[in-house]
Amino acid sequence: MKYAMSKLKIYNTLSGKKEEFVPILKDHVGMYVCGPTVYSDVHIGNVRTFLSFDIVYRYLKHSGYTVRYVRNITDVGHLLNDEDSGEDKIGKQAKLMNKEPMEVVQFYTNGFHDVMKAFNITPPSIEPSATGHLIEQIEMVQEIIKNGFAYEAGGSVYFDVEKYHEKFHYGKLSGRKIEDLISNTRELDGQSEKRNPLDFAIWKNADESHIMRWNSPWGEGFPGWHLECTVMSTKYLGDTFDIHGGGMDLKFPHHECEIAQSKGSGKTEPANYWMHTNMLTMNGAKMSKSVGNVVSIEELGSGDHLLLEKGFSQMAIRFFMLQSHYSSTLDLSSKAIAASEKGFEKLMTALETLDSLKTSNTSSVEINGVKQKFEDAMNDDFNTPILISHLFEVVKIINSIQAEKETITESVLLELKNLLNSYVFDVLGLQSTKKTESQDELTEELMTLFIKMRKEAKDNKNYELADEIRNKLTSLNITLKDSKEGTAWEKE
Amino acid sequence: MKYAMSKLKIYNTLSGKKEEFVPILKDHVGMYVCGPTVYSDVHIGNVRTFLSFDIVYRYLKHSGYTVRYVRNITDVGHLLNDEDSGEDKIGKQAKLMNKEPMEVVQFYTNGFHDVMKAFNITPPSIEPSATGHLIEQIEMVQEIIKNGFAYEAGGSVYFDVEKYHEKFHYGKLSGRKIEDLISNTRELDGQSEKRNPLDFAIWKNADESHIMRWNSPWGEGFPGWHLECTVMSTKYLGDTFDIHGGGMDLKFPHHECEIAQSKGSGKTEPANYWMHTNMLTMNGAKMSKSVGNVVSIEELGSGDHLLLEKGFSQMAIRFFMLQSHYSSTLDLSSKAIAASEKGFEKLMTALETLDSLKTSNTSSVEINGVKQKFEDAMNDDFNTPILISHLFEVVKIINSIQAEKETITESVLLELKNLLNSYVFDVLGLQSTKKTESQDELTEELMTLFIKMRKEAKDNKNYELADEIRNKLTSLNITLKDSKEGTAWEKE
Repeated sequence: MKYAMSKLKIYNTLSGKKEEFVPILKDHVGMYVCGPTVYSDVHIGNVRTFLSFDIVYRYLKHSGYTVRYVRNITDVGHLLNDEDSGEDKIGKQAKLMNKEPMEVVQFYTNGFHDVMKAFNITPPSIEPSATGHLIEQIEMVQEIIKNGFAYEAGGSVYFDVEKYHEKFHYGKLSGRKIEDLISNTRELDGQSEKRNPLDFAIWKNADESHIMRWNSPWGEGFPGWHLECTVMSTKYLGDTFDIHGGGMDLKFPHHECEIAQSKGSGKTEPANYWMHTNMLTMNGAKMSKSVGNVVSIEELGSGDHLLLEKGFSQMAIRFFMLQSHYSSTLDLSSKAIAASEKGFEKLMTALETLDSLKTSNTSSVEINGVKQKFEDAMNDDFNTPILISHLFEVVKIINSIQAEKETITESVLLELKNLLNSYVFDVLGLQSTKKTESQDELTEELMTLFIKMRKEAKDNKNYELADEIRNKLTSLNITLKDSKEGTAWEKE
Repeated sequence: MKYAMSKLKIYNTLSGKKEEFVPILKDHVGMYVCGPTVYSDVHIGNVRTFLSFDIVYRYLKHSGYTVRYVRNITDVGHLLNDEDSGEDKIGKQAKLMNKEPMEVVQFYTNGFHDVMKAFNITPPSIEPSATGHLIEQIEMVQEIIKNGFAYEAGGSVYFDVEKYHEKFHYGKLSGRKIEDLISNTRELDGQSEKRNPLDFAIWKNADESHIMRWNSPWGEGFPGWHLECTVMSTKYLGDTFDIHGGGMDLKFPHHECEIAQSKGSGKTEPANYWMHTNMLTMNGAKMSKSVGNVVSIEELGSGDHLLLEKGFSQMAIRFFMLQSHYSSTLDLSSKAIAASEKGFEKLMTALETLDSLKTSNTSSVEINGVKQKFEDAMNDDFNTPILISHLFEVVKIINSIQAEKETITESVLLELKNLLNSYVFDVLGLQSTKKTESQDELTEELMTLFIKMRKEAKDNKNYELADEIRNKLTSLNITLKDSKEGTAWEKE
């Protein structure tokens, strides 16, 4: 266990500053990240968000913390356009697919898990679902009503934002001003039961079109989308926990509402550090159907898209994403990923080279500072691009040792190996994609050797040996094909 | 879509007979299978159960049905020894692991999914959890109380078996007689609040040691283990559905109680067909720690166990299991799986041979009856061992064609390919494991060839060639090691 924790700094959206990270309990971290609404295939933007928090999770563990990481599955209550009325996203998809909503949930949850696994994103410690916490949600609605910050209207319950703002600060996370918010909203049809257009539903009366519905003190209905995260984060991490994360599109209103719900229900400030990941664009523009630049995860893998020159492995994409800081916009493009892929291969090749490096009695290279540089990069708000640039400096050193321009002792080499393995595989979560390739390579090399021996035999007029090689290969169903370019081989 | 459905017969535990399968809705099947309690690693016996129902699911789909397959996750309420009092299995494990119970649930659920995937067991359409259906469970308890078949005592609610038996038949599924059950039970400490020792808890008051607890009309508690299956099966499949399955250890009391709960809550008979898979033994005895014959799934894969001669691929184990009928006891042994592995490889080799078979203008082989035989086997209560014996008959035919003892036309060959692919890959869910193996094999074969050539060169006193081979291999980092037993090779 390496205790680097005292120096970790995190950019906290709540304060707008990079702050030293001090956990509530020594050695323990509670982290909540808003997970997917499982009504469609996960997209590459989601991957970036969950990858970013995978790095946070991995680095905290690497730094010696025990982390309880909760990432939810939204399986009810998320209405179209994130609104307070209209169809449930999952219910709508269920109608389209002619399935029970929970079949839709299962289908896309499985797909989500497959994608997470393919990108080597660690599963969270707990992955709770909204439908798994209805009693707790109903109880929280009751608490908020009891405290005077919510009211029932027509079988729904709304959070009273103005009333809340009298006592607390609505807008403290997103920096929005309630006066501006009020003047920018207008009363919408179907929301007229709200006292104020800013109010948001924490429990919705289910009209006939809603299949997913439960009995409650206010009749049959379902929980408001914002509510589940407050309930599940505090149930598993306590009223106040360390880190709350999500995509930056969730900052307002979702996360702002979470803070309001926590305080409105009589709890405290939910999270000490709020982290938000930035957006992903494609060829410089927001991915949008009308622009035609929406690229699916499958297409990124296959290269089967007009904007892609080739397909990329999930590890190349992971590496590409880690070459930007999570808080920067990241622009996807075929060229940029291809460049990262080369870098990734270079790094992997250097790591393999480590095993065959010759050691000396003295080290001309200095790697004492390397570990500190790695830590400093990650301690600076999980700065993976800086970490990777340091990794490439080490690649240069490795290549110099291989070229015998530099020397390394056995013990320094061992130290270097451990350090690289720990940062490349554990912290950055990269995986070598070499293994099966090397098997293929060996076969290729052996065949090249046979072909070379046969040519030499022929050149020496040793036709007996040349024929023997051909016949022996034939017995393995391997055919040699001679041509002007040389000899090719084929196995039936 | 192939409509073989009219002829499918299923052994129904409820009637003790093989019956023609008639679904409630034409073309649609609803199936519920009791899933795992996620407090420990899934064991190989579980794999057999879920594999058996995977075959049912696959064959029903193959037969043209739309199947809604529900398999639950038990994440609360299952007490040690399946009793009505004592510790929750998950709660106990949580204390041992020093984790939040839902972390334990997540950890073992992930492990369960990984194992299912490794054995190519299809995920169900819906995988609901007990904690995800608390409101529904509380409501069902209320219904049962209202109907007079349950009573509250000390914050718990018990199902009144005698009262129920006055009107319905308790024991109809398991064939147990209530008089015998009563005379065989005795009042246990801590269960004294039951009116009758046969009564079972449908809601349990949570004592202080229980972490997993929810508010209910009877105070804080948690649902009884039997209840969740009744609630979730009927929620997603309707009051009466087609097939209910599980391991035969669940027949009594779990499934018997499910029937009682359904009827006691005012619903009808829950399932038309009850299917039970049989047990698995190891070297002739029930797996037990005291016997020392407990073999884990990991050990089966690695061969790292005193009772195993080698490790087996998941597909070899799948094939082995399918060579017995689900309703028979299955005895695992290293020898038996090794025999199945050979059969599996033979089958896979034959399937590969199909691509290189020469076709003729006439067919001497008759495969018209083959499809009917396949269907008949599977329609006879999913008789996979019979189906596999027919597959081996086809393997013989393929080998005869390859040996040019029989002929086949192109169109018959195509038909045969489609039929085999459909039964081997879709219905039996086998996967070819050849690709990487054949690569390894080729390397082995090439190396054997080099070693043979070197030996011949030495025998012929052609030391130049012998040395050349060794040196060339050294350039590939391959070391040859001569010994009395011959020459071995190793790559760095």
